[in-house]
Amino acid sequence: MTPRESYDQFVIRLRQHADLAAALRLMEWDQETFMPAGILESRARQIGALAALVHERQTDPRFLALVDDLAARAAELDPEQQVDVRETAWRLGRERRLDTALVRARSELHAQARGVWIEARRVDDFAVLAPFLQRIVDMERRVAGTIDPSRPAYDVLLEEYEPGMSAAAIAPLFEGLRAGLRPLVDRLRARLERAPLSSGALCGDFALDAQRHFNRIVAEQLGFDFTRGRLDEAVHPFSTTIGEDVRLTTRYDPHDLRYGLYATIHETGHGLYEQGLDRHAWGTPRGHACSFGIHESQSRLWENQVGRSAGCWRHLLPLARQFFPQLANTSLDAVLLAVNDARPSLIRTEADEVTYNLHIILRFELEQGLVDGRVAVGDLPSVWRERMQQDLGLVPQTDRDGVLQDVHWASGAIGYFPTYTLGNIYAAQLMSAAEAALADLDEQLASGDFGALLHWLREHIHRCGQRERAPELIRRATGSLPTPGPLLTHLDRKLAVLERA
Amino acid sequence: MTPRESYDQFVIRLRQHADLAAALRLMEWDQETFMPAGILESRARQIGALAALVHERQTDPRFLALVDDLAARAAELDPEQQVDVRETAWRLGRERRLDTALVRARSELHAQARGVWIEARRVDDFAVLAPFLQRIVDMERRVAGTIDPSRPAYDVLLEEYEPGMSAAAIAPLFEGLRAGLRPLVDRLRARLERAPLSSGALCGDFALDAQRHFNRIVAEQLGFDFTRGRLDEAVHPFSTTIGEDVRLTTRYDPHDLRYGLYATIHETGHGLYEQGLDRHAWGTPRGHACSFGIHESQSRLWENQVGRSAGCWRHLLPLARQFFPQLANTSLDAVLLAVNDARPSLIRTEADEVTYNLHIILRFELEQGLVDGRVAVGDLPSVWRERMQQDLGLVPQTDRDGVLQDVHWASGAIGYFPTYTLGNIYAAQLMSAAEAALADLDEQLASGDFGALLHWLREHIHRCGQRERAPELIRRATGSLPTPGPLLTHLDRKLAVLERA
Repeated sequence: MTPRESYDQFVIRLRQHADLAAALRLMEWDQETFMPAGILESRARQIGALAALVHERQTDPRFLALVDDLAARAAELDPEQQVDVRETAWRLGRERRLDTALVRARSELHAQARGVWIEARRVDDFAVLAPFLQRIVDMERRVAGTIDPSRPAYDVLLEEYEPGMSAAAIAPLFEGLRAGLRPLVDRLRARLERAPLSSGALCGDFALDAQRHFNRIVAEQLGFDFTRGRLDEAVHPFSTTIGEDVRLTTRYDPHDLRYGLYATIHETGHGLYEQGLDRHAWGTPRGHACSFGIHESQSRLWENQVGRSAGCWRHLLPLARQFFPQLANTSLDAVLLAVNDARPSLIRTEADEVTYNLHIILRFELEQGLVDGRVAVGDLPSVWRERMQQDLGLVPQTDRDGVLQDVHWASGAIGYFPTYTLGNIYAAQLMSAAEAALADLDEQLASGDFGALLHWLREHIHRCGQRERAPELIRRATGSLPTPGPLLTHLDRKLAVLERA
Repeated sequence: MTPRESYDQFVIRLRQHADLAAALRLMEWDQETFMPAGILESRARQIGALAALVHERQTDPRFLALVDDLAARAAELDPEQQVDVRETAWRLGRERRLDTALVRARSELHAQARGVWIEARRVDDFAVLAPFLQRIVDMERRVAGTIDPSRPAYDVLLEEYEPGMSAAAIAPLFEGLRAGLRPLVDRLRARLERAPLSSGALCGDFALDAQRHFNRIVAEQLGFDFTRGRLDEAVHPFSTTIGEDVRLTTRYDPHDLRYGLYATIHETGHGLYEQGLDRHAWGTPRGHACSFGIHESQSRLWENQVGRSAGCWRHLLPLARQFFPQLANTSLDAVLLAVNDARPSLIRTEADEVTYNLHIILRFELEQGLVDGRVAVGDLPSVWRERMQQDLGLVPQTDRDGVLQDVHWASGAIGYFPTYTLGNIYAAQLMSAAEAALADLDEQLASGDFGALLHWLREHIHRCGQRERAPELIRRATGSLPTPGPLLTHLDRKLAVLERA
């Protein structure tokens, strides 16, 4: 076969895999949204069967041979084709090293530990989870060593989520961020000591049907295409893509408008990215999201940079009043205080923009320590308490409010946490670059016109797929490699508003 | 391998196929319920990919060899195991004869003709569909000849839906039914000439949310288990089973309570059958519905025999009044007239119980004629008109109200129609047998107690799976092979009520 013929064959196979993966995504989505409770076990089995099949197809020897052949003849391909071959070969290079027995043992361990985590939280006792967490750490070390024994295990794990990144590259970024956050947290504490923040403007009674309608319109106005997607409800909001069908979920609090709205805007950010991927390249790396960090940058940009801004609320507040007449006399300033409320807290998912990244940096350092042996599983609760005291001046009284709060490690996701803060860093850089590129962006947002910003993101991020890895993608979009400066500037401005209130 | 070991292997494979088929069912369900409109094409492709895969697995040479081996050693298996091997071998015996190219050509033709059917209906011109229908008839003849050249082509096609049945077995049943229906239709006409039926008791304004709530409670009271199923809405109500998760759909008319209610009860009947199958035998023929006709008997039994009865409405009317206060002064007699309204009509799906089967018998005879060449495709509209005049005294003025009204033939489903009337025949026999077996069934229904009837059906139909084919299953449950007598008795009673009104 000519390289062109081989490449065409290769794309046909990639797309077959993508079509099967779409069925898997739909089963997972359904499980979190509409599936009746009594059939959990059979659904788990169906998902297992299909996942095994997709894995089998992806690591089928004939397909691997095709990819190897293309990789060896990459020079004969055009640059676009090279991207697809390079990224597919890279990912398969990881997967093919793990034999089926190891893959199965790993996923069984994750499923089991996830159940134990639920129980450990119920009885509020980390000791229940500890032996399983130890097994997970051992397993992940083994997986990393099998994939690439020549590199630090943590980096191998991290690249599952953020290819092209390493602990050594992240550490100075996070250090700079932490150094910049310290004085901000001190200022926040001083502000809170002076007087309580009046942040209740969006609390009250908000009928669920009105919230559903309002949230749908917001997602639509931000640019989400409902002819190729949905917005439903789930206990833990998430989004997924079934082929080219992007499904968002949110969750409403009848007494707090913020809860559902920011979940919706966050997931809409993920959804806009997915809907903005190059449709002509579907099923290939060029038509696939770049990394978890870049994905999170899109959700965070819309949620925090746009959705909590004064410009955006100049548009949103009149819209919200159409659905919730009780907001008729609520001022823009009061709403901005409500959506930018900040205070040190114990729980990551409830943290504000100022303190959120300190929760992540803590986890990033602890999980590195777990993998390289500097931190013992048994010491996690005490180390956690020390670090929380140091960073946020708070000490969890229970494991549930401390080391047991997140499911990630118990699900085997080690190396995932840093992508949250990378997303925040990227988002601030992107917003800063977009503001520089687009005249009067704040005025555009205030008039409900999100199109220019979305277009800019489409061009600089969405359409790029996996042509570059995250650091290079950010550099091309913003003129600078990842750096915490714009995020710190953004947070400093937020804090100044709180200080004036 | 011992026969036992082979059998165990065989069941593992069957269940793997069932798990993959579940994903396929979910994609189809989603397409009809929640899928956004703009992604139809990619969904069709995903369904195609998964369907091809399921077919590939089912006809995998190693699996076929396993089944052949078991079939050859069937005498060494226990009777339960023999059922699974016999039925699987029988179905595979059909599928394996069709090579992949033929399967693909056939399904492409069906998809294409379905699109043409929509267009032919839009322009109301059978000539648009005719060439495609001719190709479908030719294709189905070829398929039948490939599966079994020794038998009449129509019988081979029919057995796809009703194994163990043949045109020769059905013809006398349907002839007897038609002979019995003629005087009933004459009586109905006479009744309608005397005075219009006052059948508007359940027409008015019925809020959709109240209808949703009411219908869900009805399904639940009939015995549908919502922890293993759902009730949603679809343009064309249907039900499907995803593993052990049974999903019903219905469709509400805001001005007529009957529309949604009888769609719900009908689909609940299908759903109760699926939920009553032997769960320990899931994935095998013993845990699978017997035939399309038996399936339809379950929906029809609950819809017509139970749901339109005086006993049932003694319970339903007070329940309905809780949701629809406007029914406070509506009498039971008025409701019974409304739900048993009958009049000759052109459209099968709108036909009443008395005339419905005449629509089916017409189609049964025409499709046999198409397959054996006695009826030319081009003559269908005129033959249709003649027969409608003869049977119902009505002549469609358009193809849309005549030969173009059903999608079945254009979808390649030839041999499917008789299962509707077989279902009605079986349902009347089963209800008659249940009434004989259960003391005071009418009183039980009147008190909202559907449990004894459901239990009887579970025992005599649901739990049996494919242990017997439909005629034998009916004989064991009712003491008589399929016969139109009980259905005619049932319709005679219905008519007597109308005649008294």
